[in-house]
Amino acid sequence: MSGRKKLHSEMGWSTVDRIVVRGHDLPNELIGRISLGDMAFLEIVGRRPNEKESELFNAILVTLVEHGMTPQAMATRLINMAAPEAIQGAVAAGLLGVGSVFAGGSEQTAKILQEALKDRTAQSLSIDKLAADIVETHVARKAVIPGIGHPLHKPVDPRTPVLFGIAERTGFSGDYVALLKAISQGAERRLNRSLPINATGAIGALLCELGFPWRICRGVVVISRAVGLVGHLAEEMRNPLAREIWERAEAEVYENKD
Amino acid sequence: MSGRKKLHSEMGWSTVDRIVVRGHDLPNELIGRISLGDMAFLEIVGRRPNEKESELFNAILVTLVEHGMTPQAMATRLINMAAPEAIQGAVAAGLLGVGSVFAGGSEQTAKILQEALKDRTAQSLSIDKLAADIVETHVARKAVIPGIGHPLHKPVDPRTPVLFGIAERTGFSGDYVALLKAISQGAERRLNRSLPINATGAIGALLCELGFPWRICRGVVVISRAVGLVGHLAEEMRNPLAREIWERAEAEVYENKD
Amino acid sequence: MSGRKKLHSEMGWSTVDRIVVRGHDLPNELIGRISLGDMAFLEIVGRRPNEKESELFNAILVTLVEHGMTPQAMATRLINMAAPEAIQGAVAAGLLGVGSVFAGGSEQTAKILQEALKDRTAQSLSIDKLAADIVETHVARKAVIPGIGHPLHKPVDPRTPVLFGIAERTGFSGDYVALLKAISQGAERRLNRSLPINATGAIGALLCELGFPWRICRGVVVISRAVGLVGHLAEEMRNPLAREIWERAEAEVYENKD
Amino acid sequence: MSGRKKLHSEMGWSTVDRIVVRGHDLPNELIGRISLGDMAFLEIVGRRPNEKESELFNAILVTLVEHGMTPQAMATRLINMAAPEAIQGAVAAGLLGVGSVFAGGSEQTAKILQEALKDRTAQSLSIDKLAADIVETHVARKAVIPGIGHPLHKPVDPRTPVLFGIAERTGFSGDYVALLKAISQGAERRLNRSLPINATGAIGALLCELGFPWRICRGVVVISRAVGLVGHLAEEMRNPLAREIWERAEAEVYENKD
Repeated sequence: MSGRKKLHSEMGWSTVDRIVVRGHDLPNELIGRISLGDMAFLEIVGRRPNEKESELFNAILVTLVEHGMTPQAMATRLINMAAPEAIQGAVAAGLLGVGSVFAGGSEQTAKILQEALKDRTAQSLSIDKLAADIVETHVARKAVIPGIGHPLHKPVDPRTPVLFGIAERTGFSGDYVALLKAISQGAERRLNRSLPINATGAIGALLCELGFPWRICRGVVVISRAVGLVGHLAEEMRNPLAREIWERAEAEVYENKD
Repeated sequence: MSGRKKLHSEMGWSTVDRIVVRGHDLPNELIGRISLGDMAFLEIVGRRPNEKESELFNAILVTLVEHGMTPQAMATRLINMAAPEAIQGAVAAGLLGVGSVFAGGSEQTAKILQEALKDRTAQSLSIDKLAADIVETHVARKAVIPGIGHPLHKPVDPRTPVLFGIAERTGFSGDYVALLKAISQGAERRLNRSLPINATGAIGALLCELGFPWRICRGVVVISRAVGLVGHLAEEMRNPLAREIWERAEAEVYENKD
Repeated sequence: MSGRKKLHSEMGWSTVDRIVVRGHDLPNELIGRISLGDMAFLEIVGRRPNEKESELFNAILVTLVEHGMTPQAMATRLINMAAPEAIQGAVAAGLLGVGSVFAGGSEQTAKILQEALKDRTAQSLSIDKLAADIVETHVARKAVIPGIGHPLHKPVDPRTPVLFGIAERTGFSGDYVALLKAISQGAERRLNRSLPINATGAIGALLCELGFPWRICRGVVVISRAVGLVGHLAEEMRNPLAREIWERAEAEVYENKD
Repeated sequence: MSGRKKLHSEMGWSTVDRIVVRGHDLPNELIGRISLGDMAFLEIVGRRPNEKESELFNAILVTLVEHGMTPQAMATRLINMAAPEAIQGAVAAGLLGVGSVFAGGSEQTAKILQEALKDRTAQSLSIDKLAADIVETHVARKAVIPGIGHPLHKPVDPRTPVLFGIAERTGFSGDYVALLKAISQGAERRLNRSLPINATGAIGALLCELGFPWRICRGVVVISRAVGLVGHLAEEMRNPLAREIWERAEAEVYENKD
């Protein structure tokens, strides 16, 4: 094994009478003394959040938990019908839909914001100039600008002002939020239609304000959705819908076979 | 569609300007007003937890988040190396290991406790009699009794007394906890070795005390582990270990091929 | 690393100019010289099948590929809609439904047949006596007997006689098939209703005849279903159904919210 | 349901005594009369392959089945250790690693070849001009050119000439193969190093020759890897490696914790 990189991790370790997680004694310093949302912050960032970080981070996590009868929730319920003895598989099936279409918005928003503001430091550009550049680049490529616009919630996504209000109160309404607002306003002018900041966009900006690298943003969505999908499983156990959804689709496909 | 069951769900719905989750207005009643752990309780149970339920449920969730370099964490890291553009898949891969060996203990413990105490009501048996029956049945089948014993943490799993302390303080140390304690003591006497209540066993009993059906217990473990696996992904992004783990195994297999 | 087990695997290895799989030179002995079905046999069993084994094993694999609009196919299509950039996740989501309800039959059938015939050698029991015991044990527990009965295909599952015909022609209609036939006939007499051997039951018996341990039988189903789910993805790309299935369910749930 | 799109699928349907897959009677026309590889072609393309298509398609599928102790195989083995009762989850975990790093090459190669040759028809460009443009575009962006180069197999990937030989013999060595060869040669000249066509690149080109849209190419890889991962599971059941791999990593992480 000479010449090999040593395996080193700060996540946790155990001995006969101790269990340590992220440098904290699990039984004596964490269990009963930290909430699940704060524990998620500790796991990802490596330290406990302060009160303001905790308030904002839990607000973000809560926003993403539940969106009704999504394709992901339906996949979880269908797989539970087929393999009820292995519900980890049902949750995993639904989580696999945390992809580009429904949940990639936070990641993509965080990515363009972080890349733009990194360049800005180097080139001392104004927020408005950065926003205008991002809008023009996307319009030229006929590409969707991440984080703005919503098929249903117009002219305002009702989650966004609440999230931004919490950010302001907790001191996390900085350049990332300002840039995303400038992008939304610039795009609305340029394209002459309603393009409000949607909830996933707002969350992308707020995770930037909290210092999260854009690559982990989708992981935050995954945590929230895991909670929501377990909620759907619990309802499916009380009131099964999957069989009905399946039988209708199968019957209709069979009728239309000719 | 005549004769078909109607699809009905209480998880949530949206209109142009409203988003409702479990009967609560998401932006105005939940975001910023409920923590992630309490949101998980709301999703599964259908109502917000009171303060005592919140304290106990968050303690349970926090206990299960992180266990160091587990097989699940390794699978998540290996899949992230192979498909870094789809981290939902990496988390899902690890969650698929929330199975019988490492995480089924809570579910199995909750199942035997709920089945025993349901019978008890009908037959007015004492806790001690129920415990003795469970121990004998398992010993006769040479089956492992769920919820007791630990390969490393002896003679006490340090998480168990902390969890049971919280249960007592919050008023959730009832018959399920009493029965599991009686099982542990009975098994130690019967088999003449140390068989302390382990953390997954304690959690199984406490989820019973909170009124959770045993079938959803593994879902609670899945929520916690999703948090932990995203933590491992965040570390893997900063300090990659998966390639080293893979290259060592591949090299050794190739050396031993003859 | 002293005292550690050496990692040894016979699956395959590579050098600069060689790639060896299961002891065969991949480019020169396998590519273009072995079919996918035979390759699956080589991977699982460790040697190429002879012609008769190949005929039977491919027949088994082909039987399980496609069953129309199953819950698994629907989950694959729904996840593809949500994450079209990661189709490995869509296939994985569907495969997670290869569980006890729809696909566990082969595994369970193989298990009871292998356990019964292992005992038989020790106790020199007749096939009929073994079958009668299995039927009685299940009836006493009110348990479903694996491998027999079908909700739709009565009084005969049309796949079964074809599979058994191939088994006879190829010399693989031995004690496992005889025992399953005796179970089906015994159960029909005992319960006085039509309980024909279904396709998954037949396949369980035939995998026993081919020498497969029961624990790997579900893996054979997984291989076939992977083929079928990729077929559904290809159709979904040409003719998307997932969005329609989702939007109907969501709309109905929203209508019924009160 | 007025105004709704009808659900229509050509995958398959059943009645009491018939099972039809892709327009063929499953028991009477497919089982025992088609191999697994040809069945995969039927599922994806909608018709049976002719002899030449069958030869090439099976060669492609066989190439991708097994690559030794890959990260995907390790993930499958680790998840099997943790959840041995649900092996569909273990296979799914490994398949989730069929992503950009190890298996995206076929998809990406097929995409650039199909896009280039579609443009060509419109603009009547030569193969060499198309290849030169592709090389220059990638060099300018400092991007890796898909389908060429290999970390181990130099100066030739031994699978490529075998696959191209079969393509020539079966009449499938057309413009896609010619373009990929021109890209490889052009890139070697331009960058002055060995950049042979690798196996995933060759397969991307050959799937184009068979008429597969690039978006389904990763699905073909998924089918092959499902076979290989079930092979690893079968070996893991006979000769478990996962626990050893896990315990070493855990022990080393614990040693290095300070």
